[in-house]
Amino acid sequence: MHHPQAASRNDAVQAASDILARIRARVPRVHCITNSVAQNFTANTLLAVGCVPSMTLSPEEIGAFVASAQALLVNLGTFDAERREAIGIAIEAAASHRVPWVLDPVFVDRAKPRAAFARELIARRPTVIRLNHSEFVALSDSALSRDSALAFARSSHATVAVSGETDLVTDGQHIATVSNGHPLMSRITAMGCAGSALVAACLAVEADSFRAATAALAIMGVAGELAAQKSIGPGSFAVAIIDALYGLDGPTLVARARIG
Amino acid sequence: MHHPQAASRNDAVQAASDILARIRARVPRVHCITNSVAQNFTANTLLAVGCVPSMTLSPEEIGAFVASAQALLVNLGTFDAERREAIGIAIEAAASHRVPWVLDPVFVDRAKPRAAFARELIARRPTVIRLNHSEFVALSDSALSRDSALAFARSSHATVAVSGETDLVTDGQHIATVSNGHPLMSRITAMGCAGSALVAACLAVEADSFRAATAALAIMGVAGELAAQKSIGPGSFAVAIIDALYGLDGPTLVARARIG
Amino acid sequence: MHHPQAASRNDAVQAASDILARIRARVPRVHCITNSVAQNFTANTLLAVGCVPSMTLSPEEIGAFVASAQALLVNLGTFDAERREAIGIAIEAAASHRVPWVLDPVFVDRAKPRAAFARELIARRPTVIRLNHSEFVALSDSALSRDSALAFARSSHATVAVSGETDLVTDGQHIATVSNGHPLMSRITAMGCAGSALVAACLAVEADSFRAATAALAIMGVAGELAAQKSIGPGSFAVAIIDALYGLDGPTLVARARIG
Repeated sequence: MHHPQAASRNDAVQAASDILARIRARVPRVHCITNSVAQNFTANTLLAVGCVPSMTLSPEEIGAFVASAQALLVNLGTFDAERREAIGIAIEAAASHRVPWVLDPVFVDRAKPRAAFARELIARRPTVIRLNHSEFVALSDSALSRDSALAFARSSHATVAVSGETDLVTDGQHIATVSNGHPLMSRITAMGCAGSALVAACLAVEADSFRAATAALAIMGVAGELAAQKSIGPGSFAVAIIDALYGLDGPTLVARARIG
Repeated sequence: MHHPQAASRNDAVQAASDILARIRARVPRVHCITNSVAQNFTANTLLAVGCVPSMTLSPEEIGAFVASAQALLVNLGTFDAERREAIGIAIEAAASHRVPWVLDPVFVDRAKPRAAFARELIARRPTVIRLNHSEFVALSDSALSRDSALAFARSSHATVAVSGETDLVTDGQHIATVSNGHPLMSRITAMGCAGSALVAACLAVEADSFRAATAALAIMGVAGELAAQKSIGPGSFAVAIIDALYGLDGPTLVARARIG
Repeated sequence: MHHPQAASRNDAVQAASDILARIRARVPRVHCITNSVAQNFTANTLLAVGCVPSMTLSPEEIGAFVASAQALLVNLGTFDAERREAIGIAIEAAASHRVPWVLDPVFVDRAKPRAAFARELIARRPTVIRLNHSEFVALSDSALSRDSALAFARSSHATVAVSGETDLVTDGQHIATVSNGHPLMSRITAMGCAGSALVAACLAVEADSFRAATAALAIMGVAGELAAQKSIGPGSFAVAIIDALYGLDGPTLVARARIG
């Protein structure tokens, strides 16, 4: 039986900075199955941080795109037949070619067919599940706590990243909190979806999924804080966070990341 | 036989301010069936003004999403089979659960199958039909005038909101004009679609569809004027109008709304 | 046998300025079959420069939309069944009604079904093929050079515009280079797709496809340079390039266009 260990704050912050540097050095390709509302902002988030996004959903080619990508994002935002078929092929290619993948089970708290589909996907072993508080409750059948997050990570064999005012990340053994971000992040559509894409970007260059997910949440949160300083509302904020992700350097990330 | 009555300018302006305050207090969810070009901007418009948008089109779940929403938008922008099926289910759910809905018959003046489909939808009793001058002519088979607008509202049993340099709103009894806005609004895609979403947002908190539609057009037009003061072209304008919707307060709306 | 001729720099630059003026005077409609990631930015690019975009994919109506448009864009970005059907109908309507069209064979270097489909489309005689270096190599089976570009244009009976640090345009007889642009253009999604839409916009008002394609690349590149002066990252750049396209005047274009 494993016991949760508090990750060293310094190590985690330095790891985040190293991961960001590796993304920029390697320019990984991240394939995204995501909803049509989020596609543009997600692609720009990935480009800003230094990745190449690809987004095809076509059954004839998605397998090849995923096989040659460095990470995969599966977001359930628009839950249509085309995407469900694409998801099946993509996950199979990811498993065959050991491509890490992130599941973002958007809105599973709102509709049962979506929750049932998300559970099937969890059985196929996503590397990371990134979700919000309500989605966690819907999928884990329990209130959110450190213990329930650890239990959900163990039962799903995935790293679980629950976003909120304070984010919680656990791989079932280690647990960390990330306390960065800004309230304007919830006033722009696709911010959570783009955050999940950033988790995939970090997984593309970091084999330790706990470190990768923690880094992604810290990077997004710090970028949000920097963007808020230059914004007067959600419109200018959405522009500024792309600029902030593009301009973020390691020392700024290290200075501002609040990982506990 | 009813006669058109001039709505009191002061009452209508105060009602718009009250409606805006109620949106922010209640944070209604507005379900949007809209075209893929407009989804992102529409979602950000709704978030900026204080709503929660949802946008799924999946037949398995759209009924549940609409039944628990406070208003529904049906926009014909991308007229595909998936959306037509979604529209049928959504309207039925809206009728069963008394969810008010807005029809935006985009481009009915350009293609006959679209006009025929829009007429079927009008027979299913939208709460508000929001359209532009050309679309009004195509659907009403008459030139735009106060009389033809009143007649179209009566025959369709809907509140009709025709946008243009001066907007015209009528429920078949009352009639109002809204003279806010800015020419840059026509240089950004999805501005009209987002305006229709704002009508749905107002319907979510106001049972009088004439007041709701008038308020929405005034809110959007005033936000456009404020945004134009901070813009040098349509790119910065699209950002600034989201900021303006987010920051708009009651006194500013009351001072600037030109409802006649 | 034709020999390549260096187009006069002054003539080409003046032609670009004239084409821009004609777009604004005539307000042509450009129908776009493009991927869902690019739709919004593409529509705003066309609106900014002075066109009206339309984007329906519905088989029932796309023929009518294309027949009455002044140009057509066919972009393979999201390669789904719906778009492939739409493309077939659209190209047939374009041929019948002599509507010029642009093929943007996105990502043909990444997936074979896409390359095969692009070759079928080339056999149906696009007016212009706009593509990047890797896509050129995949479709022409040759390294990029002035000779291979001329040969590809001749064999495909199309004007070929290869974008890169220096763009290359040839109709198989004439050849030109365009050396405008900025590195931030590659850090925003859909910039290339929007560039292809701009080629279609120029074709809508200029029968000489070599002149039209050269003008479009110069306009986009100059707008990118102007936008970079007002940007601190790709987020603000994406906003500023729309403003720059809107505000671009003939004298500025003439002064800055580097056509060789």
